Amino acid sequence: MRTLAYAALSAGTPLQPLAIDRRALRADDVAIDILYCGVCHSDLHQARNDWGSARYPMVPGHEIIGRVSAVGPAVKGLKVGDAVGVGCMVDSCQDCDQCHHGEEQFCRHGVTMTYNGRDRVSGEITQGGYSRAMVVREAFAIALPPALDLARAAPLLCAGITSWSPLRRHGAGPGTRLGVIGLGGLGHMAVKLGVALGCEVTLVTGSAGKAEDARALGAHHVLVSRDAEAMKAATASMDLILDTVPVSHDLKPYVKLLDVGGRLVIVGALEEMPPLDAGLLVRGRKQVGGSLIGGIAETAELLAFCAENGIYPDCEQIRMQDIDAAFERMERADVKYRFVIDMRSLQETAG
Amino acid sequence: MRTLAYAALSAGTPLQPLAIDRRALRADDVAIDILYCGVCHSDLHQARNDWGSARYPMVPGHEIIGRVSAVGPAVKGLKVGDAVGVGCMVDSCQDCDQCHHGEEQFCRHGVTMTYNGRDRVSGEITQGGYSRAMVVREAFAIALPPALDLARAAPLLCAGITSWSPLRRHGAGPGTRLGVIGLGGLGHMAVKLGVALGCEVTLVTGSAGKAEDARALGAHHVLVSRDAEAMKAATASMDLILDTVPVSHDLKPYVKLLDVGGRLVIVGALEEMPPLDAGLLVRGRKQVGGSLIGGIAETAELLAFCAENGIYPDCEQIRMQDIDAAFERMERADVKYRFVIDMRSLQETAG
Repeated sequence: MRTLAYAALSAGTPLQPLAIDRRALRADDVAIDILYCGVCHSDLHQARNDWGSARYPMVPGHEIIGRVSAVGPAVKGLKVGDAVGVGCMVDSCQDCDQCHHGEEQFCRHGVTMTYNGRDRVSGEITQGGYSRAMVVREAFAIALPPALDLARAAPLLCAGITSWSPLRRHGAGPGTRLGVIGLGGLGHMAVKLGVALGCEVTLVTGSAGKAEDARALGAHHVLVSRDAEAMKAATASMDLILDTVPVSHDLKPYVKLLDVGGRLVIVGALEEMPPLDAGLLVRGRKQVGGSLIGGIAETAELLAFCAENGIYPDCEQIRMQDIDAAFERMERADVKYRFVIDMRSLQETAG
Repeated sequence: MRTLAYAALSAGTPLQPLAIDRRALRADDVAIDILYCGVCHSDLHQARNDWGSARYPMVPGHEIIGRVSAVGPAVKGLKVGDAVGVGCMVDSCQDCDQCHHGEEQFCRHGVTMTYNGRDRVSGEITQGGYSRAMVVREAFAIALPPALDLARAAPLLCAGITSWSPLRRHGAGPGTRLGVIGLGGLGHMAVKLGVALGCEVTLVTGSAGKAEDARALGAHHVLVSRDAEAMKAATASMDLILDTVPVSHDLKPYVKLLDVGGRLVIVGALEEMPPLDAGLLVRGRKQVGGSLIGGIAETAELLAFCAENGIYPDCEQIRMQDIDAAFERMERADVKYRFVIDMRSLQETAG
């Protein structure tokens, strides 16, 4: 089917309306009318080819909330009208050990990303959620809990699950002294989820100006990383740290915040990091690791948790036509904390 | 009491005989006649002040096997004649959370190291196992299982426990694909213990010449790190890696050997390591961490396991008088795999 989208046609041009074709339904596919799509920082990187792997035209968007509009004959768990979410992945082999234990993001045969990926059957480039409609394999369209507020749920599909997965995997809960480094889209979700799980949450930030915001989100403490004295006083005070800083940075000051046996999990940066003393790890039995989004079952678990506990990202709703202004504001960190596109706005462009 | 020892009097001089005073027994102390003492690479570093913290005269040695010769009035679990082992620690506060859960090496009030440390009561510098006798708090003298071969057990107190602790903590057992980097004192114990625990063990080494030795120790596979093709073929093939390399080195090639969720544990180096890509950790949910010896209860567990399964370090017995030649050979990695001093030899010097 033909549908309207917003696409980058090259690295240097603003996004613009583009009619694209979605594939005809395969047996286990569902078609989705997209209601909302979150704006992830990676959308901007991809559209501008910051990572060197862009394929144009490119329709970004992997925090997708919509309603099923049609189902293929082999679809079992979804029906027309169901509210669903689609995140960073739209397919995987579904047959390897990683897929079997719910880590489709690490599929042995390569996961299919929601956009700028390659469809496993046709080889076509996948196109994302800045669009009126999409077609996706049922296994990657997650049924949403009835209580979930659809207008605010989109960022859970990427920023939410990226925080949730390491929190759960490392057993965050009452008694866990959790540090969250950075207060952007990821960081603000990590604070909210950490608080909701019962952790004692400290936001670690470079700017003292964020203290009030962090407390409003529920953080129990705020630690300003430029305050050498406060950092020293916080030595060995955390069990788990989620590091959401999206660029290369020195880990040493943060590893020192970990208590014996503590773990720092990188969820933001992919770059080469400055050197780290092995002694810092050995002398406190500490670990530094990474985490990548989360699996489909884990995402469903998160959505249920958020619906039940009323946990939502702080969203600023925008129209599709305003995406370039939103990108610019995102680059200046001028958003609290996630833009969400109301896809009804795209209809207007089409009209 | 006065006893004979071998001591470094300065960074630049060979070790030499020296009469030293051991403290009078406190209520919870035991006196020990030392039978054997292993020679750890750190003994050489400390004697030569490589780490800048040496206090002279210094009696090295923290892989100690001996027999109780006297007990203080409050000693409950040991009696004269009992065989005991003493490792890297001789005291801790015994009252903090770390001590309570058996990680005395991370005592909140600072653990007391076996030599070149400072006694918690008197403030005297502690002196190690290159000596005929010592006095130690009962809690740090581990009763040895009757089946243990005393002549071969000494290196278990440091090289053994340093390997054992991370293997146990990370659940190494049947099904675990274990990599061991480096085949020195630590590495050869990690191979033996990994095999005994049922892991599939790969020795990773820079020198192809060690392949036969590694297989003789039980390693199932040998991977030569300079063989780029073999390293590539081994991508994502390991669950757990013990990294025993004692100097700074690039972790990237080894992190690539880890499968999804895999962990690399540094037990050798304390130096600053070359930069590591965060992406390598994030894209495979991998962790890089460190581990420091092990607690007293863990060490007792290791000793019981080794006695029951007949696991011993490969020891080359030397006389105390030959320690400088042993240090020199150790520097050339000319030992398979641990020197152990027979302390009866020291008696001869005294006579």
